[in-house]
Amino acid sequence: MTKIALVGCGLVGGSWGLVFARAGYEVTLYDPSPASLQAALDFVRGAAPALAAQGLLNGETPETILSRLKPASSLAEAVSGADYIQESAPERLPIKQALYKELANLVKPDAIIASSTSGFPASSFTGEIEGRERCVVAHPINPPHLIPLVEIIPAPWTAPAVVERTDALMRAVGQVPIRLNREIAGFVVNRLQSAVLAEAFRLVEDGVVSATDVDAAMSEGLGLRWFFMGPFETIDLNAQGGVADYCAKLGPMYYDLAKEQADPRPWSEALVATVEKQRRAKTPADGLDARKAWRDRCLAALVTAKRKVLKENA
Amino acid sequence: MTKIALVGCGLVGGSWGLVFARAGYEVTLYDPSPASLQAALDFVRGAAPALAAQGLLNGETPETILSRLKPASSLAEAVSGADYIQESAPERLPIKQALYKELANLVKPDAIIASSTSGFPASSFTGEIEGRERCVVAHPINPPHLIPLVEIIPAPWTAPAVVERTDALMRAVGQVPIRLNREIAGFVVNRLQSAVLAEAFRLVEDGVVSATDVDAAMSEGLGLRWFFMGPFETIDLNAQGGVADYCAKLGPMYYDLAKEQADPRPWSEALVATVEKQRRAKTPADGLDARKAWRDRCLAALVTAKRKVLKENA
Repeated sequence: MTKIALVGCGLVGGSWGLVFARAGYEVTLYDPSPASLQAALDFVRGAAPALAAQGLLNGETPETILSRLKPASSLAEAVSGADYIQESAPERLPIKQALYKELANLVKPDAIIASSTSGFPASSFTGEIEGRERCVVAHPINPPHLIPLVEIIPAPWTAPAVVERTDALMRAVGQVPIRLNREIAGFVVNRLQSAVLAEAFRLVEDGVVSATDVDAAMSEGLGLRWFFMGPFETIDLNAQGGVADYCAKLGPMYYDLAKEQADPRPWSEALVATVEKQRRAKTPADGLDARKAWRDRCLAALVTAKRKVLKENA
Repeated sequence: MTKIALVGCGLVGGSWGLVFARAGYEVTLYDPSPASLQAALDFVRGAAPALAAQGLLNGETPETILSRLKPASSLAEAVSGADYIQESAPERLPIKQALYKELANLVKPDAIIASSTSGFPASSFTGEIEGRERCVVAHPINPPHLIPLVEIIPAPWTAPAVVERTDALMRAVGQVPIRLNREIAGFVVNRLQSAVLAEAFRLVEDGVVSATDVDAAMSEGLGLRWFFMGPFETIDLNAQGGVADYCAKLGPMYYDLAKEQADPRPWSEALVATVEKQRRAKTPADGLDARKAWRDRCLAALVTAKRKVLKENA
């Protein structure tokens, strides 16, 4: 039985706890801040009943889930005997570099150390340590217990078997891993998000459309397809003869747009203030926490609905 | 009572018929090809029962919907007395130019002529006609009876009141209009799609990730948020202090990515063939029609589920 250790228990740590525990794994959790560790367990305790009711706990009870999550009082205790360590430490390079040096001396020789980092390639914090070939990035989208995607990104020295085993474990716990062949800034998810945000800010800065209407273009339009089909499948089904037919017809139009869009701009203070103002008109600053709770409730319900729809239409 | 005329009855014409008829409007339909006109009515007849069962016909019966759709045997008959004409003719400029000249002589003085075009600004086919100030683009996403977004784009000479009335009508029939302040290539929706496709093809061309995994990054990741929140609301809820806080922390990172992404490329034959091959491994060419039917079934069910979830969490 694979033993899991979660190191770093912010929001993502607690969510990872749910992912592994509902799949039947024993999980130890560690955070240098006892309050953070407690908060992660409290998060699971708070979220589990609703998730169970929605069928998002894989048939397990909240009590069983909680019984599988074991707080550890030291890093050594947390990772002792662990086969897989999911590191979700703060996104600061010196912290990760120091942590990985420590981990290298504590983990089993064949243990995998996977980082939840969204911002740093594994090569930036594992280069100096012994056994660096066991290190990899396994980047989730928050919160992973609701959003299945995990990006697996090897450092140049990551052993292929480590990628394979991480991929297999992610599938075993119900996540959907994708594999990057090499390190690249932003990985795939944030590069796609970057492309959309760059254009979104540009359209607002140029006075073409409001920020509110850009949001509607996605949530009432494009996003309805991308919820269950990626961009390639979407265009593949949008031409009689599939994606090749689509590209033959529309490739030149998209190339013209791409040339127009090759116009990188920093987001100026004035531009950000414009967007901020429009957002605050929809959700006042003191309503952000409630709106985040709304988002998480909707996300859980929509993920449940999607599973049902895809199952009925399999 | 506003009378609607639909001119051009491809797939989008039939879907527009559903939109207006379920909202209670009388609709005349015309297409120079009687077969296309019949196909649009057959589409409505075929689709209506399932839509009624899913609660997507606004409580109307399929019979009532069909009774409101009146085929016309000439363009003059179709638009006679119509207050709003939704034009969905083929996407070829000479066809639209000739059609608008004809329409100018047939429609009521205060009628609005809105085009479903995704590719041409209204200025490219209305400049020469009398009463060009009544013309506007109202670009839907297919199929509009399931996807609410409509982009409203005025030509430089479109009367502001025409934009207002088109916007109001779209809201009255349950669509979600967004307003562009001026004409721009690709409008908003296809510019956002362009940004994503450009990056998606680039990542595949550079060997970073497979086309299949790009699709998963969206449909198992980013798309889960964008289904019900736009890109601005997504980042607004992803930092403690809202979008301004998010931009202060991550703006420089996104600017660096934007500079890397300012690399427009045509989609080469080899690249398209790579994507085509991966798509065909998932959906063989002879399975595309079945997969499109699957997409439409899923879309209808997911739209229904989304309405329910948003209503319950209002």
